[in-house]
Amino acid sequence: MLVIGERINTSRKDIAPAVAARDVAFIRGEAKKQVEAGAAMVDVNAGTFLKEEPEVLSWLVKVVQEAVDVPLCIDTPNPVALQAALKHHRGKAMVNSITGEKARFKEMVSVIKEFGASVVALCMDDKGMPETAEQAIEVGSRLIEELLKEGIEQDDIYVDPLVRPVSTDNKAGLRVLETIHGIKSRFPSVHVICGLSNVSYGLPQRKLLNQAFLVSTMTAGLDAVILDPLDRQLMGLLYAAKVLLGRDEYCGEYLKAYREGRLG
Amino acid sequence: MLVIGERINTSRKDIAPAVAARDVAFIRGEAKKQVEAGAAMVDVNAGTFLKEEPEVLSWLVKVVQEAVDVPLCIDTPNPVALQAALKHHRGKAMVNSITGEKARFKEMVSVIKEFGASVVALCMDDKGMPETAEQAIEVGSRLIEELLKEGIEQDDIYVDPLVRPVSTDNKAGLRVLETIHGIKSRFPSVHVICGLSNVSYGLPQRKLLNQAFLVSTMTAGLDAVILDPLDRQLMGLLYAAKVLLGRDEYCGEYLKAYREGRLG
Repeated sequence: MLVIGERINTSRKDIAPAVAARDVAFIRGEAKKQVEAGAAMVDVNAGTFLKEEPEVLSWLVKVVQEAVDVPLCIDTPNPVALQAALKHHRGKAMVNSITGEKARFKEMVSVIKEFGASVVALCMDDKGMPETAEQAIEVGSRLIEELLKEGIEQDDIYVDPLVRPVSTDNKAGLRVLETIHGIKSRFPSVHVICGLSNVSYGLPQRKLLNQAFLVSTMTAGLDAVILDPLDRQLMGLLYAAKVLLGRDEYCGEYLKAYREGRLG
Repeated sequence: MLVIGERINTSRKDIAPAVAARDVAFIRGEAKKQVEAGAAMVDVNAGTFLKEEPEVLSWLVKVVQEAVDVPLCIDTPNPVALQAALKHHRGKAMVNSITGEKARFKEMVSVIKEFGASVVALCMDDKGMPETAEQAIEVGSRLIEELLKEGIEQDDIYVDPLVRPVSTDNKAGLRVLETIHGIKSRFPSVHVICGLSNVSYGLPQRKLLNQAFLVSTMTAGLDAVILDPLDRQLMGLLYAAKVLLGRDEYCGEYLKAYREGRLG
């Protein structure tokens, strides 16, 4: 289970001013806290900086990699910002994300290949977000085939089924579970990733829904997730689910997290 | 999702003395609290009273049904205690439990049929508890077939895959998920039920494991559970999982639990 820390995103209230002020200590702190809490990768997103995005994203990559020894997930749909950021990245990065939309696919893929990054592939194309699980599996599979044709390995592809709020669509959660299952059975070495918080949009006590969604998607085969690793209850359930799903031999990770005071 | 409240069990420290003293107010309180917290059925177990079990179990049935308007789950492997208790039960009870063990099967089934109760069928037989999911599915299926032959409806059968601790067997959780899936695909109208707490035996922060196990088993198809409904976090995750699995139309139950102050 690959845990990617989501906190360094300029759409977050406390991150935006720190980034605007180029507050190195604050950003380093955010990176360190996430890795100490169990993130194996740190996401960086400077989307709200628009024209400045390439410069800000490059700055974030440098500052975060000075603080922690994990690879980063470069979170931008903009190939120019992506290229600028990857130039400063040490090791194998992940690119978040590519879609089946024709206009940007070639350009994004060529940057991804240039730097040998892994990639998050969103289940959407020029027709938008699919309505059914069958359509999502179809769109995801087509995107995987195109990435494989470009020479990207299955093991470097992370499909994101995309999550709609259950408040407006009763079957939204179920559809994600079916999509995970469909992608995993067609492409056993491709990974499936998702974010958690969209699912609970518009409902009270969102954390409960996000927690249950994490365990449900892991049960369905999810093997990477973007979340806030400082949420102890969420991380606790993640470690617990790994134990229950037979993905934590001798409960080693669970017991380590317990000894380090990170559980409960 | 059928929620059965597990608290009225004389193996619990605070229940045993209350039952020994025939403390009507205490037992009524335990029953009411569980129903108010979302239990649709209340389990009663007087197993520790040995020879007195028939009399004590009958007393519990009377006292609990005076307090709450839900059917009871009569928790005993003893056909004499079962018959005594069922004589005092109003409505359709559930019997917890029967196994494939030949010595007691006929006697238990005849009491179950006499009172038209539904039944929890444990996946075990004269050879003991199965080692693999395949064996558990085999034992469970044979038991279902025998119950059907006796004229009991699929809809009245609740198969319990039986849960071993993950601390001593890394695949114990996974095996339950596979058993649920196997039983559900062979017998779509049969229910699958389980208890949660065995899975976490011997590990720290057991609540986290029990919570994750509830969501995982629900994702796999579990449709009945025996738990402590006063555990708010556990019940919150249960309501959340129902929403995510498309089993709570318009999030109606989730929002009702929220309005009644039962979430989070």
